[in-house]
Amino acid sequence: MLKRIYHLGYAVEDVATAARFYEEHFGVAPGKPEEVEEQGIVATMFDVGESKIELVQPTRPDTPVGKFLAKRGEGFHHVAFQVDDLEGALKELKENGVELIDEEPRVGAGGARMAFVHPKGVHGVLTELVELPEDEG
Amino acid sequence: MLKRIYHLGYAVEDVATAARFYEEHFGVAPGKPEEVEEQGIVATMFDVGESKIELVQPTRPDTPVGKFLAKRGEGFHHVAFQVDDLEGALKELKENGVELIDEEPRVGAGGARMAFVHPKGVHGVLTELVELPEDEG
Repeated sequence: MLKRIYHLGYAVEDVATAARFYEEHFGVAPGKPEEVEEQGIVATMFDVGESKIELVQPTRPDTPVGKFLAKRGEGFHHVAFQVDDLEGALKELKENGVELIDEEPRVGAGGARMAFVHPKGVHGVLTELVELPEDEG
Repeated sequence: MLKRIYHLGYAVEDVATAARFYEEHFGVAPGKPEEVEEQGIVATMFDVGESKIELVQPTRPDTPVGKFLAKRGEGFHHVAFQVDDLEGALKELKENGVELIDEEPRVGAGGARMAFVHPKGVHGVLTELVELPEDEG
């Protein structure tokens, strides 16, 4: 079911500082940070092989990433796996009693459909499943 | 410098239970759990694209993974990136003031040379760098 690690999400205090750090010390090429108003984040990404690292800064403390930062500090926030059939995967997980955050797919950045599995359901790791539009598959 | 995500390490209470969970619900194929006595862990892995997920159970509470589990519970523990030149990477990071756990490479499973960067040095994410033997590069 899991095709590849699509991205890792890192929660950071300041996305520009963290992006510069990774650029300078690990030779990666982060894009320009972009705000996603409805999620209350500013984020940028860089490529590592077939995967990406997403640096995520909350714009408000009352968002999931804002609360995470206040509680745990900077660090790993979630992993996203690419799947072929998101609806089928969610249906199967739900039928098997795995706790989901999103029972139906949401549409994320770039038209990708995505859903979160609850970390309680997956041995403590906040896990996102992503189905890409066919032309990007 | 970073070629790909080599693996993600997840800390789990019981590696057999976690492996069965991922096998049943995500269709992956974990190997037989193996004990690494000197690290005080039992671990197994499964493939996701060009990367692996490593499930790690401590065999003793006084180990890094044992302490992590006691403090934070099950969840993401570390990320490992493949690099071409581990010594060069460590030298450069050290010269630039990035805090390292291992200033010299250690030899890990399968003859791979690896070293940990301190999470304080990398925005809160425990980060391993791995250089593979040439025939596996």
